[in-house]
Amino acid sequence: MNKGELTRKRIIEEAAPLFNQRGYEGCSIQDIMDATGLEKGGIYRHFGSKEELAAEAFDFAWATTSASRLRELDSIPDHVDRLKQHIMNFVTRTRFPGGCPLLNTAVYSESGSENGQTSANPVLRVRVREALQGWQRMLGEIVEDGKRLGTIREEVDACKLANLIIGNVEGAMLIGRIEHSDYPLRDALEHLNEYLEERVRQ
Amino acid sequence: MNKGELTRKRIIEEAAPLFNQRGYEGCSIQDIMDATGLEKGGIYRHFGSKEELAAEAFDFAWATTSASRLRELDSIPDHVDRLKQHIMNFVTRTRFPGGCPLLNTAVYSESGSENGQTSANPVLRVRVREALQGWQRMLGEIVEDGKRLGTIREEVDACKLANLIIGNVEGAMLIGRIEHSDYPLRDALEHLNEYLEERVRQ
Repeated sequence: MNKGELTRKRIIEEAAPLFNQRGYEGCSIQDIMDATGLEKGGIYRHFGSKEELAAEAFDFAWATTSASRLRELDSIPDHVDRLKQHIMNFVTRTRFPGGCPLLNTAVYSESGSENGQTSANPVLRVRVREALQGWQRMLGEIVEDGKRLGTIREEVDACKLANLIIGNVEGAMLIGRIEHSDYPLRDALEHLNEYLEERVRQ
Repeated sequence: MNKGELTRKRIIEEAAPLFNQRGYEGCSIQDIMDATGLEKGGIYRHFGSKEELAAEAFDFAWATTSASRLRELDSIPDHVDRLKQHIMNFVTRTRFPGGCPLLNTAVYSESGSENGQTSANPVLRVRVREALQGWQRMLGEIVEDGKRLGTIREEVDACKLANLIIGNVEGAMLIGRIEHSDYPLRDALEHLNEYLEERVRQ
């Protein structure tokens, strides 16, 4: 990486927790200037707009979060156990400042939208949709592999199971955030583990 | 109601969809002046601060949403059926502009918070917590009534079941919002109905 690329990377890394904690509207270019020590021109040299920077920052936040949720998965041969480890990683390893970037950015990127038709942040919205699709695909592949190799029941709908897992952990994270408690997420983990053992494992 | 009280009520009703769609940071007093046709002084005569108005607007949005989710519940004698109707109402009747106020405001009210310790919106945060507690209590009472009257199994944990229902529908609503689809919520309804019949009904 040359100096310009390093600066661009540093701006993204500094901006990501700010956008995730404060939201798109709540994080100004001034906040990012303060965090990076750069002038406005030094930031806009690397990004065409605040929206473009926010999109790159979301991708960085999501990549960081996703990597921690994928840890140790490849070494687990059984597919149900792999799903269970992923859920456990979500519960114990989602540590990005401000919490899950998907939850936050899905809500923030709708800010400014009128009756769901238009959005103030179409670029950010596309990134959020791609992040969700990537997560669904990752889970779906584990399920399909398991079905092919006989560890997961034939009748399991990969897409529905992926959404059941994502919906349960994201919803529980929302409750836990409001209550400042880990219990909702731990209860969701228990519920999903039970479901996976009883309805998914071959 | 006298004229002042009517004006106050009208400001809350006009501001509620704006805050819910745009977020606290994304909705300015100017936006509310434009929507109501009032001067700044005409708004601040009724509310001490933007934060106070946002809190009242959230309470209105939540009361409206909750009322639609409670419809037809009292006429259903069986407690499991009552839970199922509530979930069905959530899926088919959450029509407040901008979507579920609890999901939105839980995320928005954290804007400005640093590592979860402080918040830019402590007032709003308290209202969100009270709203969640009210929802949990309402579901918990149905479960406890059902346990006492023999329609719900003794061993069901009312608090965990309430969170399971809330987490599933809120998480599915998040996925559906990103995908612009009703399917995640309908799948969550199916999952919960199955769970209620198999694990909760006496």
